[in-house]
Amino acid sequence: MRMYDIIKKKRDGGKLSEEEIRFFIEGYTDGSIPDYQAAAMCMAIYFRGMDTDEISALTLAVRDSGETLDFSEIDGIRVDKHSTGGVGDKTSLVIGPVAAACGVKVAKISGRGLGHTGGTVDKLESIKGLRTDISKEDFIAQVNRIGLAIIGQSADMAPADKKLYALRDVTATVDSLPLIVSSIMGKKLAAGDDCIVLDVKCGSGSFNKTLADGERLAREMVSIGERAGKKMLAVLSDMDKPLGRAIGNSLEVIEAVETLRGGGPDDFRELCLDLSAYMIELAGKGSREECLAQVREAVSSGRALKLLAEMVEAQGGDPTWIYDTDSFPKATTVSELLSPADGYIRKVDAESYGLASLALGAGRNTKEEGIDYSAGLILNKKTGDPVKKGELLATLYTTEKPEAVERAKEIILGATEIGPEPPEDMPLIIEIIRGENG
Amino acid sequence: MRMYDIIKKKRDGGKLSEEEIRFFIEGYTDGSIPDYQAAAMCMAIYFRGMDTDEISALTLAVRDSGETLDFSEIDGIRVDKHSTGGVGDKTSLVIGPVAAACGVKVAKISGRGLGHTGGTVDKLESIKGLRTDISKEDFIAQVNRIGLAIIGQSADMAPADKKLYALRDVTATVDSLPLIVSSIMGKKLAAGDDCIVLDVKCGSGSFNKTLADGERLAREMVSIGERAGKKMLAVLSDMDKPLGRAIGNSLEVIEAVETLRGGGPDDFRELCLDLSAYMIELAGKGSREECLAQVREAVSSGRALKLLAEMVEAQGGDPTWIYDTDSFPKATTVSELLSPADGYIRKVDAESYGLASLALGAGRNTKEEGIDYSAGLILNKKTGDPVKKGELLATLYTTEKPEAVERAKEIILGATEIGPEPPEDMPLIIEIIRGENG
Repeated sequence: MRMYDIIKKKRDGGKLSEEEIRFFIEGYTDGSIPDYQAAAMCMAIYFRGMDTDEISALTLAVRDSGETLDFSEIDGIRVDKHSTGGVGDKTSLVIGPVAAACGVKVAKISGRGLGHTGGTVDKLESIKGLRTDISKEDFIAQVNRIGLAIIGQSADMAPADKKLYALRDVTATVDSLPLIVSSIMGKKLAAGDDCIVLDVKCGSGSFNKTLADGERLAREMVSIGERAGKKMLAVLSDMDKPLGRAIGNSLEVIEAVETLRGGGPDDFRELCLDLSAYMIELAGKGSREECLAQVREAVSSGRALKLLAEMVEAQGGDPTWIYDTDSFPKATTVSELLSPADGYIRKVDAESYGLASLALGAGRNTKEEGIDYSAGLILNKKTGDPVKKGELLATLYTTEKPEAVERAKEIILGATEIGPEPPEDMPLIIEIIRGENG
Repeated sequence: MRMYDIIKKKRDGGKLSEEEIRFFIEGYTDGSIPDYQAAAMCMAIYFRGMDTDEISALTLAVRDSGETLDFSEIDGIRVDKHSTGGVGDKTSLVIGPVAAACGVKVAKISGRGLGHTGGTVDKLESIKGLRTDISKEDFIAQVNRIGLAIIGQSADMAPADKKLYALRDVTATVDSLPLIVSSIMGKKLAAGDDCIVLDVKCGSGSFNKTLADGERLAREMVSIGERAGKKMLAVLSDMDKPLGRAIGNSLEVIEAVETLRGGGPDDFRELCLDLSAYMIELAGKGSREECLAQVREAVSSGRALKLLAEMVEAQGGDPTWIYDTDSFPKATTVSELLSPADGYIRKVDAESYGLASLALGAGRNTKEEGIDYSAGLILNKKTGDPVKKGELLATLYTTEKPEAVERAKEIILGATEIGPEPPEDMPLIIEIIRGENG
């Protein structure tokens, strides 16, 4: 088998066999296939796409490129949630504790952020002392003991994805459905969960610019997961507005804590409860209504918040910060952005809000860069809100990049459309896609 | 400027600016742009194509990536011919001497072959002692003295093309019109000719599988050449049959010599005279009819053959071999392939004939491989010929690979269609495409 022939076959619109796909992924992982052939291959896949058989083979080859985790030592139903990302997305910090408080096991492996916002692991590490690099044994023991653990992805899991992602990132081949699906699902399937809920974002703040894109991605991932024996359900949610009001690491942890207390922004709280209910429903905890009641009780009783504090403590963090969020270090520069006009917030470009947050120090420009945990934004006005000229739109926070404040304000203003009429109302959850076993 | 953005722009169907194209070619030549980004770029160009402005900018960037030759010291009109290649194509060995005998200057820079057949340089080197690596000064002096020289391309000319071609060859991006045009014309424009006749082959033995492909390629090259101030003319010719009867290095030189003597296969002789007449017509040597008369006279008078012998001598070869082709070393294994049936040769796959010739040792599998100059085929029957069962179809020659003879016969039989009815007649020259100044 020659890589040249495999590239040419895909270039010409052919369907690759499982052997050909494995040859590509194994060869690229072990270095026998060079970057330039993999780059040409990714671009050919970008243009020609792949059918479900091919995506499934690609996903399993990515999964099998490294270590897979055996969760059989975890008692109970293991449920995971994956979000396709988006600006201000801190759902994992809420739904993990809520679902675990309802009796399912949440053994979550998360990534770091590269790009405009930090990942879940970065957000958690804004809590003093908290470690996300604990051993597999400790991870499984913790899940068995308290029902919940969130760790970073080890270098041994799905190394093909790590290498491919770095290549796609510099060859303009990130935005390809088969490559996105195999990247997400290859990593997910390397862990041993029974049920997976996918939170697929649509809108300018995400890969799926249109609803149709999001639907295709969701259906493909549900199908690939089911082929691998998982119970699957996908929630398509609106990402044309940032989720909640906080963007930035410790700002988002604080918002998540408020949400677990029953507060927090309405849109964000409702999405988290919906997602948590779908997770436990997939795990067989009852009807949709029963599950919704259970997750509300997990929050109102304080059990979910207590579980987050237990997880923080188990992973070396200071649990008192969860009960007193004033413990998080404050940004030394705080600046208010006021509305330049009267009217309604008609539309915002969530991606630009993310870039403003990156400019303030909340994300990484390169893998090596550090993160300013205190940096970010709190949005006072969101899409649909009425606003008066001179009223507070957003508050900007930074410790390390005070010089970026004016630039960040410009970005936010440029990404915010204010007009005389309110926008059409769009539900946060657009559609539910259930797998055949889900 | 970032290569990432240039790849993405082309991927999304955008039109690249001259600066962007130069940034790509200069960066790839000097190594600041890595192979994997160039590979992704070539695949994006493969899918999205380029318009004439972009192809022109790409061609000039390839030309300017290395040394360009100044032909201003050559007195007279400098005319070149380029063939897009094909199996058994030895036209350069004939039309160079014929055109030069008619008073134009032919300073030809040729390539080596990689793939099924040797290039013009390889064919010439089958003549004992002949050198194609002579200095620029000697090259120009020889053209001024006798009107003709054929040398190999130096490593300093169009190095971007050399690097890009090697990359395209392993990433399935050879068959892309913009990349083919810029590769051919980038090299052609690095030499200082006034007029260029392009011999564009269509059919299974060439890149242009269909007539429409060949026309597009020809029109694009004519247009790019004219933009660079050249007089251009393209001849679309049929490559569904191999050209002439000989395939293989010294076999082709011998056939070229016979043609210069007024013999040789009819199809090949007529194409050579046609091409030579177009060359001198572009150079202003008279009307089409006058030019055809001049080239016929150059052959019948023996002046063209004498010019080839002079060139061979000037480049260190033994000119007596031109007058006595029995001097060429003979293959030690000669084997006849007989027809398995009665009928007509309805169709042959020229590319497969080339592969049979390669199997016998006439071409290189890798750049490092040597060539068996004596190896190849003589076709006794060609498309349209009637044939009887047991009659001679072809003779196979090899010195170094006698074990390949049976395999080569199988390839030829598999690529030859014999049927009861003669095929439709197809003219060798299909169409002439003239530039606006041509």
